[in-house]
Amino acid sequence: MLLDFYVDDVIKNAVKEDINYIDTTADIVIPADQRGSAYFVAKADGVLCGIDIAMRVFALLDDSFACKVHFHDGDKLKKGDVICEFTGNMRCLLKGERTALNLIQHMSGIATETARCVDIVKGTRAAITDTRKTLPGLRALQKYAVTVGGGKNHRYNLSDGAMLKDNHIDACGGIAEAVETLRVRLGHMVKVEVETRDLDEMRQALAAGADIIMLDNMDCPTMREAVAIVGGKALLEASGGITHDTLRDVAETGVDIISIGALTHSVQAFDISMKIALQ
Amino acid sequence: MLLDFYVDDVIKNAVKEDINYIDTTADIVIPADQRGSAYFVAKADGVLCGIDIAMRVFALLDDSFACKVHFHDGDKLKKGDVICEFTGNMRCLLKGERTALNLIQHMSGIATETARCVDIVKGTRAAITDTRKTLPGLRALQKYAVTVGGGKNHRYNLSDGAMLKDNHIDACGGIAEAVETLRVRLGHMVKVEVETRDLDEMRQALAAGADIIMLDNMDCPTMREAVAIVGGKALLEASGGITHDTLRDVAETGVDIISIGALTHSVQAFDISMKIALQ
Amino acid sequence: MLLDFYVDDVIKNAVKEDINYIDTTADIVIPADQRGSAYFVAKADGVLCGIDIAMRVFALLDDSFACKVHFHDGDKLKKGDVICEFTGNMRCLLKGERTALNLIQHMSGIATETARCVDIVKGTRAAITDTRKTLPGLRALQKYAVTVGGGKNHRYNLSDGAMLKDNHIDACGGIAEAVETLRVRLGHMVKVEVETRDLDEMRQALAAGADIIMLDNMDCPTMREAVAIVGGKALLEASGGITHDTLRDVAETGVDIISIGALTHSVQAFDISMKIALQ
Amino acid sequence: MLLDFYVDDVIKNAVKEDINYIDTTADIVIPADQRGSAYFVAKADGVLCGIDIAMRVFALLDDSFACKVHFHDGDKLKKGDVICEFTGNMRCLLKGERTALNLIQHMSGIATETARCVDIVKGTRAAITDTRKTLPGLRALQKYAVTVGGGKNHRYNLSDGAMLKDNHIDACGGIAEAVETLRVRLGHMVKVEVETRDLDEMRQALAAGADIIMLDNMDCPTMREAVAIVGGKALLEASGGITHDTLRDVAETGVDIISIGALTHSVQAFDISMKIALQ
Amino acid sequence: MLLDFYVDDVIKNAVKEDINYIDTTADIVIPADQRGSAYFVAKADGVLCGIDIAMRVFALLDDSFACKVHFHDGDKLKKGDVICEFTGNMRCLLKGERTALNLIQHMSGIATETARCVDIVKGTRAAITDTRKTLPGLRALQKYAVTVGGGKNHRYNLSDGAMLKDNHIDACGGIAEAVETLRVRLGHMVKVEVETRDLDEMRQALAAGADIIMLDNMDCPTMREAVAIVGGKALLEASGGITHDTLRDVAETGVDIISIGALTHSVQAFDISMKIALQ
Amino acid sequence: MLLDFYVDDVIKNAVKEDINYIDTTADIVIPADQRGSAYFVAKADGVLCGIDIAMRVFALLDDSFACKVHFHDGDKLKKGDVICEFTGNMRCLLKGERTALNLIQHMSGIATETARCVDIVKGTRAAITDTRKTLPGLRALQKYAVTVGGGKNHRYNLSDGAMLKDNHIDACGGIAEAVETLRVRLGHMVKVEVETRDLDEMRQALAAGADIIMLDNMDCPTMREAVAIVGGKALLEASGGITHDTLRDVAETGVDIISIGALTHSVQAFDISMKIALQ
Repeated sequence: MLLDFYVDDVIKNAVKEDINYIDTTADIVIPADQRGSAYFVAKADGVLCGIDIAMRVFALLDDSFACKVHFHDGDKLKKGDVICEFTGNMRCLLKGERTALNLIQHMSGIATETARCVDIVKGTRAAITDTRKTLPGLRALQKYAVTVGGGKNHRYNLSDGAMLKDNHIDACGGIAEAVETLRVRLGHMVKVEVETRDLDEMRQALAAGADIIMLDNMDCPTMREAVAIVGGKALLEASGGITHDTLRDVAETGVDIISIGALTHSVQAFDISMKIALQ
Repeated sequence: MLLDFYVDDVIKNAVKEDINYIDTTADIVIPADQRGSAYFVAKADGVLCGIDIAMRVFALLDDSFACKVHFHDGDKLKKGDVICEFTGNMRCLLKGERTALNLIQHMSGIATETARCVDIVKGTRAAITDTRKTLPGLRALQKYAVTVGGGKNHRYNLSDGAMLKDNHIDACGGIAEAVETLRVRLGHMVKVEVETRDLDEMRQALAAGADIIMLDNMDCPTMREAVAIVGGKALLEASGGITHDTLRDVAETGVDIISIGALTHSVQAFDISMKIALQ
Repeated sequence: MLLDFYVDDVIKNAVKEDINYIDTTADIVIPADQRGSAYFVAKADGVLCGIDIAMRVFALLDDSFACKVHFHDGDKLKKGDVICEFTGNMRCLLKGERTALNLIQHMSGIATETARCVDIVKGTRAAITDTRKTLPGLRALQKYAVTVGGGKNHRYNLSDGAMLKDNHIDACGGIAEAVETLRVRLGHMVKVEVETRDLDEMRQALAAGADIIMLDNMDCPTMREAVAIVGGKALLEASGGITHDTLRDVAETGVDIISIGALTHSVQAFDISMKIALQ
Repeated sequence: MLLDFYVDDVIKNAVKEDINYIDTTADIVIPADQRGSAYFVAKADGVLCGIDIAMRVFALLDDSFACKVHFHDGDKLKKGDVICEFTGNMRCLLKGERTALNLIQHMSGIATETARCVDIVKGTRAAITDTRKTLPGLRALQKYAVTVGGGKNHRYNLSDGAMLKDNHIDACGGIAEAVETLRVRLGHMVKVEVETRDLDEMRQALAAGADIIMLDNMDCPTMREAVAIVGGKALLEASGGITHDTLRDVAETGVDIISIGALTHSVQAFDISMKIALQ
Repeated sequence: MLLDFYVDDVIKNAVKEDINYIDTTADIVIPADQRGSAYFVAKADGVLCGIDIAMRVFALLDDSFACKVHFHDGDKLKKGDVICEFTGNMRCLLKGERTALNLIQHMSGIATETARCVDIVKGTRAAITDTRKTLPGLRALQKYAVTVGGGKNHRYNLSDGAMLKDNHIDACGGIAEAVETLRVRLGHMVKVEVETRDLDEMRQALAAGADIIMLDNMDCPTMREAVAIVGGKALLEASGGITHDTLRDVAETGVDIISIGALTHSVQAFDISMKIALQ
Repeated sequence: MLLDFYVDDVIKNAVKEDINYIDTTADIVIPADQRGSAYFVAKADGVLCGIDIAMRVFALLDDSFACKVHFHDGDKLKKGDVICEFTGNMRCLLKGERTALNLIQHMSGIATETARCVDIVKGTRAAITDTRKTLPGLRALQKYAVTVGGGKNHRYNLSDGAMLKDNHIDACGGIAEAVETLRVRLGHMVKVEVETRDLDEMRQALAAGADIIMLDNMDCPTMREAVAIVGGKALLEASGGITHDTLRDVAETGVDIISIGALTHSVQAFDISMKIALQ
């Protein structure tokens, strides 16, 4: 789904970062025409993400690269699963190894953690979403990984969704005024979310016709009350400091969306290793 | 220390990722000439990293931006510390907020975790280093953050240090042959490290004149024996699956270097928040 | 509102296109330190757009550039109005002239034509919007110019709004199925529009819960009927072959949005000329 | 003729502008391996330009893309002509559609209008040329389209042709002095044109040995007189405010070149539509 | 004269090439706020070129940089001349030193050698020009340096001057046909040069109306004859294997242009050294 | 060995520099589907370098390009040797010719001169190395060419090797202090070289534990004495003003490394010509 042009740029930049001149080891000790075979193996249980991108690293480096992919993005992995097998020029396999692993481990880490959260809220109406707390240059990769793990994407960036926070509201003189200002000038394809800190603000946002209302750092009883008040006339998003321990409780309040910054700002790499052999 | 040209590229890419057209909220509801004041506050204890880069985000967006920085890279932070105070055009403060925080939280997360590891090994001869397990496009930022936390950098990339792994060695017919092949062609400024899986390989690497010998996933008694055998004639690097729990024991074996991939591949963002007010 | 980083890239590319080596005229016949003064004058009536960008061309070329701007984006211009006055290094004024004019004339052309359309529909509920029929590399400039002329923006691109056309619908087996498929996976910030060719399709889209329904190339009586049927439960967009002659009639059907591709794909440059004198 | 490297850059930027993350519609509702077939059809009479570039959009997005092209750049199109037929991955066809059409419609618009002008002056000695009044980033595409329509290119940019305007002349103290200054320093491959406002200036330019003399906004009798005076010793270019109505008269004065800014600054898109079907 | 946007790109790329992470020496041993003073001194006699560019290296790295320039581009230098004096942040002076020197030494090398050639032909009508035998990415710098040394530029690239070589002529069926083909389609601002290998070809080129005729690897008597035949009706360019030893003789044949590839393809760096001191 | 991504960028930039619009000659006079055949021939004796890169120029321009390469990088060439033969689209052969030759002539020039120096020191322990005196944007190409000629590379840039010069030492208060400062903070993969101007400084560097000691502009007897003093406890590098005439004497002093800036800053292009014929 990710645009090849974007993916290729990410890969080329990463490889150039890793080889600013030559590979001082492989380019010297490995014969130029040496072939190699390799495979990726999961070192833990999780959800795979980034297999196409990892394979693309080698394909961009090596016209002779060929691979068989056994698991695809979104597939569940068990420790020990052989994810894919491939062959290519040995120098290229070695030059691409670290970049490919850095990408697939990061993306699978995100997908795995997202799937864990989605699992926790299963049976409730709550969707798990990411935030804009992503790593510079990696937003598309990270947001894609969240969807692979079963989550949904919050707005992609400041351009494609409007969210009114306290400063915006202060500048307009109130929630109603801020929403109205947006409605007058925003295009019809852009939704409006309002961040609220208590039920009073939430009621104002509702009255102002917000599409989504964020309940910022509210406790569960308050959120439950909010759900009752809103009665489906707007979407409700729970946000702020939600952990594995509290996630189920939050979901059971009846909110529609739970956004979790840690999905992308504090990623635990998923361990995949690459085994190579000379051919 | 990081080159401004590099930092500016990272920032501009990150902001363009966050605003591909306009800020649909701030550009509509905030008056163009509205001023704002803001500050960063630590939400936990840790080590600061990336303050100059975070401030640079706003400076690049806003000629009128001015800041007072109270803590610098490497300083220890206590929860509640006000890190810096600044003023600028309100729209620009809002447009830069997320990018600035994403950068400083990631870098401070690395510095904080590195400092924790450095603290654990205090009093031993072991240095804590990073690896090439970094995130695409962010290697320089991440490696810099490791040094700010008191760690040292392993080789930057495949071009500036030679490391012989099993495939390289197999292709040459043995450790001695591989090291010799490198010595004949490598420039005199490049060091040679050999990855070894047992004491026998380690002895071969030592005999071959490796500058550094990596002890890959060895247990502590074995590493202790390695230290005794080598007797300072090469540097020894412990690597592989080292956690907070095992780190002290590894350091006490007498190895010179302990490299930890998680410092950069599994970063826990350090929580810093930005408070803004209209002026 | 447009991000400086984006604007600067557009300008630098345009100037490099116009000077791939040196200015073979000015760099030879104008002394390096010659100063000049200049002004922009409107050659017709219209709406100004791009004044900041045009001035930025010179500012990027010349640290000594200074300007007084008399009219701003969105202001109405009468033929003969002096838009701005400025001084700078003479070579730089000559090097920037064409790029600055090319930008401001194109953007003002869009704003002027948009304003004309907005004027035609005045008093109806219809908003005038652009489309994705923009010129490569210039979308942000063009969409901004539409807002300056009083129009609104349709979705910026394929990433920030979902629009179901006949092929999408065919692939899913029907409008209801297609909308449902989107609802299951799309983030909560993305709106869904359905393109319909007759009232039957329109009814299906309405039943499926589309946020916006496009009435593609329908005649006015049909659109009027559509407005009646929908009764405010979704937004209605008229699209396809609408001209100055038919625009008012379309607006009076009661549709919410009228999108016009020609606003950006067939732009008539607005004539502004630059007068320069040696100082 | 256009360099692939340039064309590919234009296309990739345009597609990235249109998809900054994913295609929120096609990537969700169209199966990843769905095939599609499509064709381009002319919606009016005109001259085709940009067919290779339009096909290149899809080829860059899709390795499986295949096309049959029935009309080539420069061919005359009748309304209803099927320009080309092609097949490919359905998602890629949808992702490339708008960019491909935006390019081919713009380029064909230029070629069509140029051909119209060339037709008007048929039988005279006048060549129709473009100017530097092009759209930022699109100069090469636009100038190429002018040649496809039967026009010729004026200088490409400030680097490859010298043109003396009033400010240059003032800075040198006169036409003779300005031309002489250029002759001393310009390379032998660069031609010199002088812009003149009346016959007196024209005579000075002729005496100074200008290669080309521009007759700026002169009326037809004056231009006719200029042609007689010059007698073939320099090329004469008519420029300024020439419309379809006046073009023939201008051409019949005997000038060699008629430059028309509107060919590139006020382009009417040529209507081509793309029909797609699932396979 | 060179466009700042171009120069800045060259400089930033060069510095990034020299510092892909940090300066492992200066960033560690020099205090961050240490000031330094420096100057450039000529180590030989020659012609200066690139002083503004060299100073720009430091200015881009260091906002606090200040310089006094004693010699400018085109000035003659004597061994020992102090070219400029400057102060700045010590780390930045050290980081920019090599890039600045690499640029100014290369450019001054070209200007010095060009001046030598110009001096040799003094008193004849021959101009010394460069060719397209330049180093990748450096053409503008190199061509500019040729003009600073008193030479003139041949065509900048394949786009701004037409030159017919044997293959072009073969493809058209003869010199006359090839020139005619160009005249029909080329814009009026582009000159046509024909490469000829003997007097017969030269006569054909003359008859065909070539603007310039290249005499490729002809001996001096033949070129003298060519000059007589042409009698000023076209420019004549001598080219091919001309050395210091033969240059004067070639010039005295009466040719208009002598092009020398070695000016840019075999540059001897002009020795300038930078002396730095702590402040 | 050079990374394709880097090579492709160099080539594309070079070709764009040479064709900023179209090839005004070939694109007009050569039919679009004309085929051609060509070969490269050596015009002198030397060492080939850059053959893959030169062929890549054509391959990037032309999918139909095919070549047979008879000599590879590092092979010795005799005047008249046919290096490679190839066929392709005629326009593409002409468009790529100059860029391909500029690259291969420059690289072969470096390899040839390096091989000459390596030959002069044959039988001594001295290795010939380059320096950082390279041309902007071409460092990787140039350093690679040095290795092809049998030389070794000095540090690639400021990031991958530490070299203490007088200013660094002054800032620390002495050689011992400077080396110690580096040892505390530098990673274990980075070597430390100290530049010394006399035997006293050399002794200090030795005592401080420098990995390499540069003997800057010392005479041969002094260097010989240095070799005796050091006795293999560090590597010794001779540097400064070494010519063909003095090179053998310097090598015979027993130094380990002789670095020569002229290898890359004053390159004499190696003459290779391309013969083309229509097919």
